[in-house]
Formats: sequence, structure tokens, C-alpha cells
Amino acid sequence: MDTVRIRVIRDAEPTFVDATPDGTSDGDQWFTADVEVHNPMTRYRVQLDRGALGYSWLNGSGEHHRDIPDAHDFRLTTYDPGPDWARDAVVYQVFPDRFAASSAHRDLPDWAEPAGWDDTVIHQGPHTPLQFYGGDLDGIRGKLDHLTDLGVTALYLTPVFPARSNHRYNASSFAEVDPLLGGDPALARLAQACHDKGLRIIGDLTTNHSGDDHPWFRSALDHPNAAERSFYYMDAAGDYISWLGVPSLPKFDLGSQELRNRMFGVGDSVVSRWLRPPYDLDGWRIDVANMTGRHGEHDHGNDIATLIRRTLDHVRPESVLLAEYTNDFTADLTGDGWQGSMNYAGFGRPVWSWLQSSDYEASLQGNPYRTARRGGPATAASMREFAAAVPWKVAGRHWNLTSSHDTARIRTVAGTPEMVRVAAGLLFTYLGTPMVFAGDEIGLEGTNGEDARRTMPWGRPDAWDHATLAVYRDLIAVRHAHPALRRGGLRWVLQTDDALGYLRETPDERVLVVVARAPWSGALLPGALAPTGEAGRLYGEAELTVAGGAVLVPGDGPGVGIWQLG
Amino acid sequence: MDTVRIRVIRDAEPTFVDATPDGTSDGDQWFTADVEVHNPMTRYRVQLDRGALGYSWLNGSGEHHRDIPDAHDFRLTTYDPGPDWARDAVVYQVFPDRFAASSAHRDLPDWAEPAGWDDTVIHQGPHTPLQFYGGDLDGIRGKLDHLTDLGVTALYLTPVFPARSNHRYNASSFAEVDPLLGGDPALARLAQACHDKGLRIIGDLTTNHSGDDHPWFRSALDHPNAAERSFYYMDAAGDYISWLGVPSLPKFDLGSQELRNRMFGVGDSVVSRWLRPPYDLDGWRIDVANMTGRHGEHDHGNDIATLIRRTLDHVRPESVLLAEYTNDFTADLTGDGWQGSMNYAGFGRPVWSWLQSSDYEASLQGNPYRTARRGGPATAASMREFAAAVPWKVAGRHWNLTSSHDTARIRTVAGTPEMVRVAAGLLFTYLGTPMVFAGDEIGLEGTNGEDARRTMPWGRPDAWDHATLAVYRDLIAVRHAHPALRRGGLRWVLQTDDALGYLRETPDERVLVVVARAPWSGALLPGALAPTGEAGRLYGEAELTVAGGAVLVPGDGPGVGIWQLG
Repeated sequence: MDTVRIRVIRDAEPTFVDATPDGTSDGDQWFTADVEVHNPMTRYRVQLDRGALGYSWLNGSGEHHRDIPDAHDFRLTTYDPGPDWARDAVVYQVFPDRFAASSAHRDLPDWAEPAGWDDTVIHQGPHTPLQFYGGDLDGIRGKLDHLTDLGVTALYLTPVFPARSNHRYNASSFAEVDPLLGGDPALARLAQACHDKGLRIIGDLTTNHSGDDHPWFRSALDHPNAAERSFYYMDAAGDYISWLGVPSLPKFDLGSQELRNRMFGVGDSVVSRWLRPPYDLDGWRIDVANMTGRHGEHDHGNDIATLIRRTLDHVRPESVLLAEYTNDFTADLTGDGWQGSMNYAGFGRPVWSWLQSSDYEASLQGNPYRTARRGGPATAASMREFAAAVPWKVAGRHWNLTSSHDTARIRTVAGTPEMVRVAAGLLFTYLGTPMVFAGDEIGLEGTNGEDARRTMPWGRPDAWDHATLAVYRDLIAVRHAHPALRRGGLRWVLQTDDALGYLRETPDERVLVVVARAPWSGALLPGALAPTGEAGRLYGEAELTVAGGAVLVPGDGPGVGIWQLG
Repeated sequence: MDTVRIRVIRDAEPTFVDATPDGTSDGDQWFTADVEVHNPMTRYRVQLDRGALGYSWLNGSGEHHRDIPDAHDFRLTTYDPGPDWARDAVVYQVFPDRFAASSAHRDLPDWAEPAGWDDTVIHQGPHTPLQFYGGDLDGIRGKLDHLTDLGVTALYLTPVFPARSNHRYNASSFAEVDPLLGGDPALARLAQACHDKGLRIIGDLTTNHSGDDHPWFRSALDHPNAAERSFYYMDAAGDYISWLGVPSLPKFDLGSQELRNRMFGVGDSVVSRWLRPPYDLDGWRIDVANMTGRHGEHDHGNDIATLIRRTLDHVRPESVLLAEYTNDFTADLTGDGWQGSMNYAGFGRPVWSWLQSSDYEASLQGNPYRTARRGGPATAASMREFAAAVPWKVAGRHWNLTSSHDTARIRTVAGTPEMVRVAAGLLFTYLGTPMVFAGDEIGLEGTNGEDARRTMPWGRPDAWDHATLAVYRDLIAVRHAHPALRRGGLRWVLQTDDALGYLRETPDERVLVVVARAPWSGALLPGALAPTGEAGRLYGEAELTVAGGAVLVPGDGPGVGIWQLG
């Protein structure tokens, strides 16, 4: 290597800084460079210049022996990454209708079709959103010990606002908690109980649309001169734009200043109100964040993200702001606005494609194609590209997930508890914040997002996969015990079709993670990675052998191994 | 192939459209799909779904057998691409001080260091910008026959505003033409002469900065309360931001509405004035467009591009707006604003890297590294990626170039007239608008941008490379005679280390271009490409052989072959 340079984009113009050799350690050669971060989000790449032999570029999509566009360059950001507690969080997602029911008896509204707690979920067709199990907030409050026993540190609730559906993403109000869930007092009680146990609690807000029975929409529809008419894309005839063409979900026109004030202002807005006492939510997960503020030639997307962020900073500075992106988030996540996103693209889908069982034939997330099974190198490449194309500070704030209320369950996709364990090995050690969809930890199944919304079988202990529960609990404990797994760097050291391995490192600690979906050949890693000749096993059954200048990783599989090196 | 789908991004959400088989022709299988272009700039990619065998994505960076970010997806735009004449243009760049001098005698200002017309250019050091040859606008006017003989259709002039340098990028005024060039009347005469000959004429405007002796800057500096103070990034002490830290080039703060009005308004603004009679410029090339409006946390870049475009549409709808980007332009060129860019990234640099002589050791464009010589596949990959990541309408409007006033001359980079011919073969047949830097066509040399600013040796015919001139003239003539070379699609059919080939096609015509930098092995192409069994040679010496169900491309090289197929 003749020269190492950092190419830094400054006001859209490339500039170059020489990197200087900074010694070697554990077999690695280090370089350092002083880079001025002139723009709030600054792209850079590395040039490896071999003089007359030519140069290559190293960026988020790998090493390239030719000139390439900037799209996959690494990014630095000067924006605040969000609260410190979020870096260490393990998030637990609860779909309120299905988690736990208190003993309260409530009259059901006309639309609801009551189901018994152990009834089978209707996972397609018109009855799907109407099937009503009656889980509520006091029910959740009664089960918080399950979360803390597991090692969870934050509860994320899908919407709690009233709506004519069990999923409540078609809000008829943002001003009150659904009485069917116990109303405002129940949310205050739940939040208090969470905080008393050291748990954070995060809400779910749809900023892209309301339900068609929301008073704003009724007013817009009924009164052409109403202020709320500007809240929607509605023409003179009252025809309006809706989310993906679903008429019950009229899309907000976020060009409206009055709507912005009501939704996002620092006063008594929707975003602000629930962050204040007595609710004290610790942040928001934003539904359909990718589409929010975007319609045709209108693109208020990043403006809205930044606006909400400013309000959070003002009203509750230590709160999180997580964005739903089912697809590529890299264009929008510059570090301002959304702190991170639901990491389907850079974690969930690659993991599914690596681990999915040959018996799993459905499509994930409603896509019109069958997910393909991929090998380890392809899986790692996708994970790396999505991670590298957002600032490191952002990549660490994504919520990684192996299931959600919008996907099949990992148990169904991966097929066996052994493969779920492999997925969990990735979930709790990879860069980002692990999010567990309630029920995954006890082996619940589900062939699609709707089917995944199964009730927790509190009264049927035989329906629990206790072995999987132990896997989750143990892996979360390892994560909590080792800062490198939460805050460390990430270096891929192993990519074969059936095994993946990476290092998570802080200045004080080096942890090796190896996951395998099948028996594989094993690998030799440089012995310098384990300089003291010792490798402390943190998780799994396999032992590393350190000898003869190398570390022998055994080819056991399927399984998860975590070792502390050196 | 089981299923072909188009994945279209709609308001940042993926949607899918099935493509339907639409017959075969000439050995190709065709698919069509109806795609709604909901957003003004809409990204899409192709999915090739093989069912249980998995799927792949095809986008601007090729076919990928895994999930990938959207950055390199293809793009559609609904924006107007700019005037029709620009699609057929051959642009000729003139650096006024060095092209031709009239007989006018003018007193030189204090800064100018007069040079004789045949003196050697001082290409580095403090004298470089001061060396004054005295070319002027009437001089250019006297040489327009050279342009029309060559086949040029548009004259692009680097700045003509007064400035204390020979390059005039440090304007002391945007309100008048430099008297040293003949003043306003000379520009009017030149524009009239161009239009009389059917030539377009395009100006060069620096929107990123002014010179430090511009009255706006002097006012800002001397009068803290002046309106012009807001035009620059100036603090209370009068310290200011300048372009790349060069104090004589104070950077504009384009957040200033007053500055926007004066520069870009539809009234008597800088942009507007010169598009109106008696000057009637046919458009602007914008200097440092990439950095315009960008500084630290301020990013008015795309707003300014759109603002200028709106003014052009109002004042002179048939005018062009070309942006200087020395680097990646793909993030900004959505179709609105800039119509295209100087295509260094997607044409110039790949071509240089393929053709550069082993004797050429300097860096291009002032980069701190030596350009690497690359093979054909790497070259084509870079060209494809940059082309695919902007809308097709935009890719066709870039100004492709093999030299400019900011680079070494192609003659010096490529080393021999034979290799210049290969470069010219690409320049006049590839997707986009060819731009010739005056003097390239007669073999002028130059080791860097400043050295390239050599005078045209009108009085020394022996200094002309007449063979190269004939190459340029002939290739331009072929381009003009064949719409496929100007407006056709582009399909790569041949990529070896030493030879590249592509088809340019319209519904009426198919043209094959093959360029080789050395003798190579030759290649067989499917005979269906030449269904009539005839291949009409349009340029070059080599004959295609059509026989036995194949087209044999001979391995001659270096050279250029252009054939009309079928």
C-alpha cells in the first residue's frame, strides 16, 4: 500500500486528506486522518493508492477497482444521535389487542367481532381487522415482569388510539386513548408502572393518514370551508387521496401549517401531549414514515421528520424517534429527523433470506414474490451495504427485527427452534437495537403479518417453547453484560454460505460472534485476535481452539457461538 | 425466466407491476409494462423472478442476486428535458483569451502580462492567470467558418465578464462584457453572426462566487449595512467564506432573496439579461454548479437550479442549462433544474482511464493521485452506472468531453493521434452531447488544465494535425447523418480489455459502434443483429463479416468502426 487517502465530500465537491500510518495491533495496520465534517452529513470513502499499479476505492459497497458514483460512500453526521439509553435498549413490541387482557368488562362497539383468547387468528379476508380479542393496557401492565425477566428495557406499543379495527392504524382520534384499552388513565398507569420498573415506553403514531371517521376528516368532507379541508388531498367534489388507495385511510397533506401545528407543534399537539405527564411516553415509532408528507410532486418528508425531532428535543429531549421503513431508508436517514428506522432492509430481510426454511413458501411483507434463500456472502453484503450507507450513529439506532406485526413469525420462516436460535444470535449481537415481537421468545408462529398477531398463551404453559425463551433470555443477558455488543464497532471476519462471523469491539473488549445455519467446515482466524491465548465462551457450546498462531473456529451448526477474545 | 416485474417507487414505497412478454425480435425477448410515474422523478428496477430458484434485481449497476439499496435504480422523470435542438448539438468550447484575436488594439490593465500569440503557456504558478494573449469576441466571430466546417452546431464560451484574470471566473461584473473582449457590442455581433450561421451560442456563469473586486463584494466589505452584505458569508469583522479558501473568490450566500433576484430573476437579472436581445444567448453553462448554494448546513443547491430553470423557461424557453460537476452528479440531476452536466464522471474519466498512455503520469483535474489505467469492462461499468443513475432524458443531455479548459488535453493523455481517434469515436457516438474543447480537433497538447489553454495556431498550418481534424469532421458528419447516434437507445454488446462496442438504435435504424485501443481478438455477435445480412460501413476501415448466423467483428486496433446493421 503506497498511500491511503480519505476522499471527503465538502459542499458537494471532493477533497482529499492523507491518512497516516498509526501502528499495528493484533495483526491489523491502522491509519488515521483528520477529517473536517463541514456539512452536517458528510460522505467519505477511502482511496488505496498503489501508485503506478493504480488505486481502488473502499466504500460501503466494498472495494472497487474503478471510479464509482458516491451513493454508497460512508457518511458522517454531526447531528445528535438520540438518547444514550436507546443505545443499550432491548425493545419489546406489543400489539395491544393480543398481548394480555385485564379483568375489565367493556361493551364492544358495533364493528368488533369478539374472539376467545385462544381462538385461531383470522389472517386474511374482511374479518381480519375486526376480530377482537380484548387485550388492554392494564393487561399489559400485569405482565411487565415477563419483560423484565427476559431482559427487555423498552416497551413499544402499536397504536392505542381509538379506531374501528383491532390494529388501530386507522385512528378516529389522536386526542384520547381507546376506551377499549382502558382509556387515558390506563396509559398513565402503564407508563408509570414501566418507569417504576426501569422500562421505557414508546408509542406508535401514524403521521401519513388518519382513519376516515376521524373528526378532522369528517369536518373536511362535510364542510368545504373548514380548516381541516386543507389537512387532506381533497378536491372540490370531496374526492380524496388515501394510503395505497384504501378509502378508510385518507392521506394527510402535510403542506398544511395548521395540520403541522396540531400534529407536531410544541404546544398541545398530538406528538407533544403524550410525551408529557401523566403519560410521559419515551418517544414515538412513526408509522409509514417513508411515505409521510410525500405525494406526487409534494415532498415534505424530511421537513416533517426534522419538525417532529425539534418538537421532541423541546418537549422531551431524551426521547426516541424511530421511523417505519419497510424498504430502503438510506436516502432519508442523514442523522437529523428520524434517529433510526425499523431495519427490515438491512437486517430482517437478509436474515430471513439466509435462514428461511425450504418449507416456507409465502412471501414476506405482502410482496408479490417468494423470498429467495441466499448464502452467507450475499446476506452479509446486503447487511453491510445498508449499514454503511447511513452514518454509523444512525446504523446503531435502527431497530433490528426478525418478526413484527407486519411479517411472518421467525419461527415459521426459519422452521425450527434451532434456526430461531441462529436468528436470535444475530438479533442480539448485530449493530443496532434488537426489537422482539412479543411471542417470538416463546416460539409463536404465523405465516404472515396478520397471522403473526397471535395472543400470548398465558394460560397454556404447554404452548410455550421454554427452550427458545431461555435462548432469548440468555442472549439478552450476554448483550447487557458486554458493552461491545451494544456499543462496539463491527468487523466481518467470516462469510461462508452456512456461517457468518463478526467482531464487536470497544477499546476494552473484543467479542467474536459466529452463527451457522448448518454444519460447516470451520475456519482459522488470525491468532492475533486472541492475543492472550484465551477465548472466554460467553454463549453456545462450542470451544475455540487457540494454537499455532491461529484461532480455530469449529464447524458446528446450526448454532451460535459468542466468545470474548484476548 | 418465470416472471418479469418492474418495481416502481411511489412516494418512497415500492410497488410492483408485472411485465408481459411482448414478442421477440432479432433474437431479443421483449417485455412491456405500464408504469405510473406518480412522482416527478420515479425510481424503478427490474425483477427477474425464477420462482423457487430465486430472483434477481436488474438496475443501473447491473444484475444482483440479492437485495440491494435503491441508490443505483433506474429513474424516470416527467420534467421537460430541455430544448430539442440540444439533443442534436455538437458543442465547441472556446476560451476567449486563447482562440482568436481581432485586429483591435486595446490598452491592457495593470494586472495583465501580455504574451505573444505563439508564446508558450505558463501552466503553473502565479503568472498563470495573468498571462494575457488578447483573444477577443470579434476574433472568434472571424473564425466561425472553422466551426461550421467541422460540423459544430453550438458555441460555448467560457466567461466573458470583466475580471482580473485571463480565465475570467472571478467576475468583477456580471453587467457588462469585458471591454478587453470588445464589450457588449462585440457579444451582440458574435451572437448575431452565430445565429446567422445556424450556430447556437451559450454563456458561462459563475453562480457560486464573484471576484473580490465585484462592486457587490466591495459594498459588502465597506458598508456593513449595505444590502450586498447579505450576498456573502461575511461576519461582523468582514471575514468571509471563499471558494476553496481562495480569498479573491468570495462565495455567494444564496439564501439572500435580493441576491437571488439580481442573479436569477425574470426581470433585468444576470441570468435573464444576456438571454434577451441583442445578445440572445441560447443558454448557460453554470460554473461550480455542484457547490452553488451549498455551505455547511446551508443547502440551496437544488432550489437554485430550479429557480434558474424557471427563469430560462420564462425568458427564453428554448435555452439550455448545463451544470458543471467535476464529480458525481447523480444525486442532483432529477430532470428539473439542471438539464445535464459536464460529464466528467460518466464519460471523460472512464475514457481517460481506458486510453491513457503509459507515458502520462500527471493527475487529471488537479486530483492528488495519478489516474489509473483500466480495462474495458471496468470502463464500461463506470459509464453505465453514471448513465443509469440519472433519468434517460438527462443522460442524453450531458456534455460528454475528452478535454476541457480544466483538464489535460486528450492528445497528451492518450499519447498518439491513433488513440485520440479512438476517444473521438466514443465522443461522437456515445449517449449524450459531444463537446469539443477548441484545439483538440487539431491535436493541441496540454499536460493539465492550464497548459491546455493554448492558442489556436491560425498562422501556423504546420502546427495543425490535419489527420485528426479529418477524423473529427468525419465522425461529426456520421453523427449528424444518423439519428440513432444522437437520439437512439444504447446497448452494450462488447466489453473486452481492449475493445468496447455498443448499439445505438431507433425504431428505424441500428448502428454498431466498436472502438479498440489495441489489436484484440475480435468477436462474434448474434447474426440477428444484422437481419438483412448486410452491414453498411459508416466509418473506419474494417469490414464486418456476416455469415453462418453470426456477425464477425474483426480484431483490428487501435481504431474505430461504425456500421449500420440490417
